[in-house]
Amino acid sequence: MAVYTHLGADQLAGLIAQYDVGELRSAKGIAEGVSNSNWLVETSSDRFILTMYETRTDLADLPFFLGLLDHLAARNCPVPRTIHDRDGAPFRMIGGKAVALIEFLPGVSVDRPGIAQAQAVGQALAGIHLASSDFPGHRANGLALDAWRGLLADCGDGLARIDPSRPGLVAEELAFLVDRWPQELPRSVIHADLFPDNVLMLGDRVSGLIDFYFACTDITAYDLAVTHAAWCFDSDGSNFHPEIAAALVEGYESVRRLSDEEWAALPILARGAAMRFLATRSYDWLHTPHGALVTPKDPMAFARRSRSYASMGSGAFPRTKG
Amino acid sequence: MAVYTHLGADQLAGLIAQYDVGELRSAKGIAEGVSNSNWLVETSSDRFILTMYETRTDLADLPFFLGLLDHLAARNCPVPRTIHDRDGAPFRMIGGKAVALIEFLPGVSVDRPGIAQAQAVGQALAGIHLASSDFPGHRANGLALDAWRGLLADCGDGLARIDPSRPGLVAEELAFLVDRWPQELPRSVIHADLFPDNVLMLGDRVSGLIDFYFACTDITAYDLAVTHAAWCFDSDGSNFHPEIAAALVEGYESVRRLSDEEWAALPILARGAAMRFLATRSYDWLHTPHGALVTPKDPMAFARRSRSYASMGSGAFPRTKG
Repeated sequence: MAVYTHLGADQLAGLIAQYDVGELRSAKGIAEGVSNSNWLVETSSDRFILTMYETRTDLADLPFFLGLLDHLAARNCPVPRTIHDRDGAPFRMIGGKAVALIEFLPGVSVDRPGIAQAQAVGQALAGIHLASSDFPGHRANGLALDAWRGLLADCGDGLARIDPSRPGLVAEELAFLVDRWPQELPRSVIHADLFPDNVLMLGDRVSGLIDFYFACTDITAYDLAVTHAAWCFDSDGSNFHPEIAAALVEGYESVRRLSDEEWAALPILARGAAMRFLATRSYDWLHTPHGALVTPKDPMAFARRSRSYASMGSGAFPRTKG
Repeated sequence: MAVYTHLGADQLAGLIAQYDVGELRSAKGIAEGVSNSNWLVETSSDRFILTMYETRTDLADLPFFLGLLDHLAARNCPVPRTIHDRDGAPFRMIGGKAVALIEFLPGVSVDRPGIAQAQAVGQALAGIHLASSDFPGHRANGLALDAWRGLLADCGDGLARIDPSRPGLVAEELAFLVDRWPQELPRSVIHADLFPDNVLMLGDRVSGLIDFYFACTDITAYDLAVTHAAWCFDSDGSNFHPEIAAALVEGYESVRRLSDEEWAALPILARGAAMRFLATRSYDWLHTPHGALVTPKDPMAFARRSRSYASMGSGAFPRTKG
């Protein structure tokens, strides 16, 4: 959470003048987003989020990300529109980096969702799955099973420093996932990172789904599993909340019904989701230089979820109706 | 520049409900302020800055700082008002820390002021000096000459690591300042830290003077000297811009005329201003732990200003009119 690049007032005003959004009145760097810089910009006509894509975002992916926002917003999903410049471009370059101007959406991120909130999140997630069905873009998931294996291999001996029993458990779980990962389930565009940070709420209503920079084409139900892992435990992974899980899935199914095959696969997809975040967090934990602007998050929060999912099996997905 | 404390959505909504400002709609942590956490908060009625005072701000000083904002805003200075809660309190406690809700002002900070902008800054500064004349509050300057000496003494051998010739030059300059520091000049409330970061502008107009957390009672013309040191050089202290200096002082004098004694004292007050920031920056440079959220600023930027002021004498204060 940081602003990595300084943008001067003249640069900002010059940039805003390239859009039909009125004159710059304010710009505050905001502590949001892990790998990009963001400003909350106010013009004489409206408010916007200005995002500067730092090194981690591949420029070639921007048309997918920004086009997806437009596609979903046009279908009434609570997703911020991309503002196009006077020439119709969805992003511009400034000082060698890409920047995009994005609609500002109200709402705050909740730390501990209530039942009605979890239900609303499930509905919103299913909404983007349905609405993206005719989106022409395609992006491979750069953080799928192969990538988890690679990241965890790159952790080497470090994994044992995080937790002495970790290397053995991880090897066993990865072997299980490789063996059992479903191949035939429906696929679509997925958000792939729908943590509470990335959901804006006004009361029990979802006012915004944001930060689509992990969005990709993958197993649709895997997105529900990621969201389940993100919302149904205390953030440190210590307690599972079955009533939140039930509400999340019920909300999802009220918009998009899961097939029997998807239901059956949810427990293993959730184990995969836990492994995905265990892999990236372990890697970042061991590779983030001391003194970096971003503090790495504790990988153990997902080691705990991984263990919980393995022991709960289908119990992690209680069904409220037959 | 960081947000040091996490405030949950429920905490924020509960806090905002204590004020007559409508309902919480958005809150973004902003990368502003060095020692406090700040959020840009939007409610159903307006936008505000929410400041949480972290350990560096003394609670006992808050009535001075927040009362001063109200006093100046009521006299049409471009200063954000303090929003009082439903019981009239200017600040509240949350999780053991004080928070205040402050008016949001539009504008952006300029990196390199133009002539008209420097003139406007001079006018605004003189405006707060005049408007504070009937402010009843008093606060000693915790960063006056004695404090510079103390901070530089605490740097010990470290000063030579910043620059081998530094200890000798600093000792000589401090001795000079102790010997010559003016005692009889007019005093008032001063901002004491009016860097470009702390001035919001809309074009050539000053729309906001912010961050009064170094404000105190001291020599009025010293505030002009601080502002001169902050605005009339490149930020690294490398080039002096006489036309900006002339415009700043001319703008100031168009609102509050300097006496002959004040004019005569400006060169030494400016050497003091350079020493004040050299002292705090050297101290922070040597004492900020590796990996802290805030990167310390280069003390050499003020070593260069110190040297420039010593060599320029009254030449740093060109008069455009007799």
